[in-house]
This record gives sequence, C-alpha cells and structure tokens, in this order.
Amino acid sequence: MQGNGDKAEKRYVLLSGGVGGAKLALGLSRILPPSALTIIANTGDDFEHLGLHISPDLDTLLYTLAGEVNIDTGWGRRDETWHCMDALEKLGGETWFRLGDRDLATHLERSRRLSAGESLSEVTAALCKKMGVEIRLLPMSDQKVRTRLTTDRGVLDFQHYFVRDAAAPVITRLEYAGAGTARASDGVREALGDPQLAGLVIAPSNPYLSINPILAIPDIRKAIKETSAPRVAVSPIVAGAAIKGPTAKIMRELGHEISSRTVADHYGTLIDHLLIDAADSACANGIEHSGPAVTVCNTVMTSDKDKMDLARRVIASCEMSS
Amino acid sequence: MQGNGDKAEKRYVLLSGGVGGAKLALGLSRILPPSALTIIANTGDDFEHLGLHISPDLDTLLYTLAGEVNIDTGWGRRDETWHCMDALEKLGGETWFRLGDRDLATHLERSRRLSAGESLSEVTAALCKKMGVEIRLLPMSDQKVRTRLTTDRGVLDFQHYFVRDAAAPVITRLEYAGAGTARASDGVREALGDPQLAGLVIAPSNPYLSINPILAIPDIRKAIKETSAPRVAVSPIVAGAAIKGPTAKIMRELGHEISSRTVADHYGTLIDHLLIDAADSACANGIEHSGPAVTVCNTVMTSDKDKMDLARRVIASCEMSS
Repeated sequence: MQGNGDKAEKRYVLLSGGVGGAKLALGLSRILPPSALTIIANTGDDFEHLGLHISPDLDTLLYTLAGEVNIDTGWGRRDETWHCMDALEKLGGETWFRLGDRDLATHLERSRRLSAGESLSEVTAALCKKMGVEIRLLPMSDQKVRTRLTTDRGVLDFQHYFVRDAAAPVITRLEYAGAGTARASDGVREALGDPQLAGLVIAPSNPYLSINPILAIPDIRKAIKETSAPRVAVSPIVAGAAIKGPTAKIMRELGHEISSRTVADHYGTLIDHLLIDAADSACANGIEHSGPAVTVCNTVMTSDKDKMDLARRVIASCEMSS
Repeated sequence: MQGNGDKAEKRYVLLSGGVGGAKLALGLSRILPPSALTIIANTGDDFEHLGLHISPDLDTLLYTLAGEVNIDTGWGRRDETWHCMDALEKLGGETWFRLGDRDLATHLERSRRLSAGESLSEVTAALCKKMGVEIRLLPMSDQKVRTRLTTDRGVLDFQHYFVRDAAAPVITRLEYAGAGTARASDGVREALGDPQLAGLVIAPSNPYLSINPILAIPDIRKAIKETSAPRVAVSPIVAGAAIKGPTAKIMRELGHEISSRTVADHYGTLIDHLLIDAADSACANGIEHSGPAVTVCNTVMTSDKDKMDLARRVIASCEMSS
C-alpha cells in the first residue's frame, strides 16, 4: 500500500482501540488515500477463548473498515446469526462472550493461520485483503500482551472484567502483562519511523484499557517520544462522561477528575495537541496552560459525516502543530 | 445408567462407526432399555481441524440418538445453517470439511473440555447428558488413534482421504496409528467385561475404516476374543455393493471379492454369527461351512421400522448363539 511513488504524500498513524477508535478510523479512511493511513490496534484485549485466538479490537477495526460491522452495537458483524451460540448454550458451554456465526469464521481462520506459524501481523494483512480493506491495519505487536486488572473482585483478565463482568468490578491497578518485553511489530516500527509521517493520532479510545497497552511497549513509546511528527489525541471525555464504555468509571476509581484535563495529564508530553469537545470548551485554557495545544470541536461521532468532520479536524490539528 | 438393580438384565454392546452404525444403534435404542445398551464408537476418524477436536463418528451417533441428526445426509445436525462456513470461504479458509453453525458448538465445547483436562469419555458423557441421550456412548479409547491410509496419492490422514478427496484415492495399506499402545477406555473395559453381557454386536459399518480401528486396540480385541457372550456382526455388503461409502471399493483395492463372505473372513474367529442380506442368501452356506452361523434377513435400513426390525434380528441372533 505504501511506496506508491508519491514522495510528498503525508502519512498518518492512528493508535486505536475498538468501537470509538474505529469510528475515527472510518472517518480518516474516507478522507485519506489508503496509502496515507496506518492503524495500530491494541491487542491487550486479545484472548484465547474456546480454543480460538480472539482479537476484539482488530476485528472491530477490520469489520468497520470493511463495511461489515454491526452498526447497532459498533462491534461484531452485520446481519449476524447466533446459531452456534444457541447450540453451545444448550450444551452448557461458555457463552458469556458472544460469538456470532459469521464472526466465528474470523477467529477460526486467524487461529488456523497462527497455528500454522504466521504472525498476527501476517494474519491481519491476509484478513484485510480478503475483506477488501486497503488501509494498513496492524497489531501493535506480534507478541502476547495481556491487560490484567486488579479489582475488588481479584485479578481479572481483560475480557472477564470487560464482557463477562460488564466492567462492574472496581479497578485499583492495571497491568499490561508482557508489554515490557514485547516489541513493536515490523509494520509498526516502519510506520512510526516513516520520514513522511505527518501525524501520530491517538483515537478517542479508553486511555487505560485501549491506548495504554500500546504505549506500554517500550519501542512504540520511544518512537512516539522521539518522532518529529505532530502528535494529536482526541479526548474520549465529553461533559464529564465517556461516550461509551468505562473510561469515566475508571478515572473515578483511580482517583482522577473525570475531564479532558485528566486525559491531557495522562498523555503528558507524548502529545502536542488535544481535541476536546465543544461541551468542555471551558477547560481549554487550563489544559493549554501547562499542556498540549487544544482544539475545541464536536468530538461525538454519530453519523458518517461526524466521523469525517472529526477526521478533518484531526488532520488540520496535525498541520497546525507541525 | 447401569446398575439399575435388575440383575437379570441382558446387556448388549455395539461396536459402531458413523452413519450405517448409527442406524442400527437407533434401532437397538428403540427396542432395549437405555441401561441395556452400550455403544463403543470408532475414534480413528477423529482429527484436529481449525484448532478443534472433531469426532465424526461420536457426533453422528450422538446426533442420531438425540433425534438431532440431519436425516437427509445421515450426519451433521438437522435444521443446520452454514453462515460460519460461508464467511470462512470468503476469508479463504479451509472449508472442505463442512462444519454447520450448530455442529460447531459441539466441537467448540468438546475442545474446551478436552483442553480443561477432561477425557474424551467424560466429554462424551457430558454431551450425551446435555442432549438427552441416556444410552451409554463411549469412545473406544481416551487415547489418540488415527487411521492413516497409504494410497496412490501418498499417505493420507483419514479425513483428507474420506472427505477432502471423497474416498477417490486407491488404498494399498491401512494403518491405525496409536492403536497398538492405546488402552480401551474405562467404560469400554467395564462394558466388555460385564457378566451380564448378552451380546457383542458389530454394526454394518465399514470393516476397514470404522471397525478395524476399534479391533486394533489390544485389550478390546482380547476382551472380544475371550468373552463368553455371543458375537454377532451385520454385513455391510448387499448384492456385491456397499449400502453407502467406500467399503466395496476398498475390498476391491485390497484384492478381495466384494461379498459378505469377505466380511466373514475379515472378522474370522472374532464373530460367532453373521447377518447377511436376503439378496445374498446364496452365499449363506458357503460362509457357514467354515465360518460363523448365518442369518439371512433384510439388512437395508431405510425406515425406522427397518432399523428396529434389524435390531430385533440382531438380538435374536445373540440369543440363538448363546
């Protein structure tokens, strides 16, 4: 996809989790040529379930970019059926993680390819190709990183916390097991070191659960610290709440104010620019005082137009910060 | 299921492969109380596919006895859908072994339980219970036995030969890898050693592909040799052809006459009685001359009545031979 001969092409990298990040990914994919966008997905949520390797964030991004996502939920496949899960329930099997019949095919094929010795990057590239996704979608690492949470119900694997227990346990500590020794995948290293990199974008994904696992990989963190490209984040907090998911709940549990200022503090010197929602315009000056530049705009992505508008704001912020 | 207090209960054991054997299993299940029937299934066809442990003969027996089988094919589940396979095909995955959406649940649950350390016998018992099957259905062994075929296309795993290549390769040699060191599962040993055993029945399954793997396990073979219970087989050959599957083709490839006489010679002194089809009545005397006693009857099972009629003939033959 890269190396299309356009030496002047500005290229962008998006760090992303699942649903929220996928919306911005879709917006960016609509306003940039495929060769100009690389998405680095969190794989700290990956897990082995029923003998299958499941990569929830990669799948949500894949399905979203392929136009295959279930628009009602933001994850899983559209026109999905649940015959396998229904049958599994009757057999007394584990059904807390809902795998649709079509979705299962992705996990079966990924698991088969991984067992045959392919890397997660290679598998993801193959799935993208088969689903007609031209944008480069990359797992953050080909090595195993697993988000684990210390909670009031004990130490929980990510999906047990997030799906089985519906993010209800109170978090006291987050751990990204394996991140310290994991290496960025080849594609990730290449994308972050690309001399034509014109912007490093952090999606409005959960900073603790979706973005931190990526930033916890030493060579990714180092590359982001050292890049000369502008680094722009979109805050997932709007008017003291998260659009979706437990971001606000976790902020509270960790003793932080539920605000975009906390997001700015969280990313610290890793970002140059933060996009916050118009509803929070009042805190723009406070953030800029000691932190990144701030752009105030609509960050709530409901329609495809919203997604493209925010994507344009993100690109404009990169240009502004360069 | 056993030990229901009826000390006089006559108990029967059926050695069975998939489709053909399952028909007789169903017939026997309709005329015997559940505690009186134990089915020992071939697991030489088992294989790992897409990361799942698949036990085709156990599944065919399970679905048949549970009233869940696809009656048109004789295997797989009724009212099945194929959304996962369709999606897998689009991903370029391996779809030569067709796994229906509901059928997949069985493989997922079996694989999960095996990974958790359960034996195949325990998993099978759990699946039977969940599907309402009261008859004791047992894998021949909890250890791995794999039928492998030397053919004109090289050495093939069973399912590659049977399903992927539609049994087209010419067989020169059959091997039951692992059988020599495999042990009968506990339930199998118990059933074959049961003092109330009133008959050991060999289903009209493929002698080479379905029954031989069972007989290749040393302690099963020994128990059958030594039992005082009558041993009755039903010939899978009718009028010089097999009802279904490659039995006749393999007989030819191995240089044998395609007849019930070959079946009698094949089982040799392991059986006391052979049921052959009315169409082959002419060879009854020849078989009896140097081999087992012969009963001539209809062995083609189309309707449920056919299955029960043949089951009654089988039980009558056991009584006759005792």
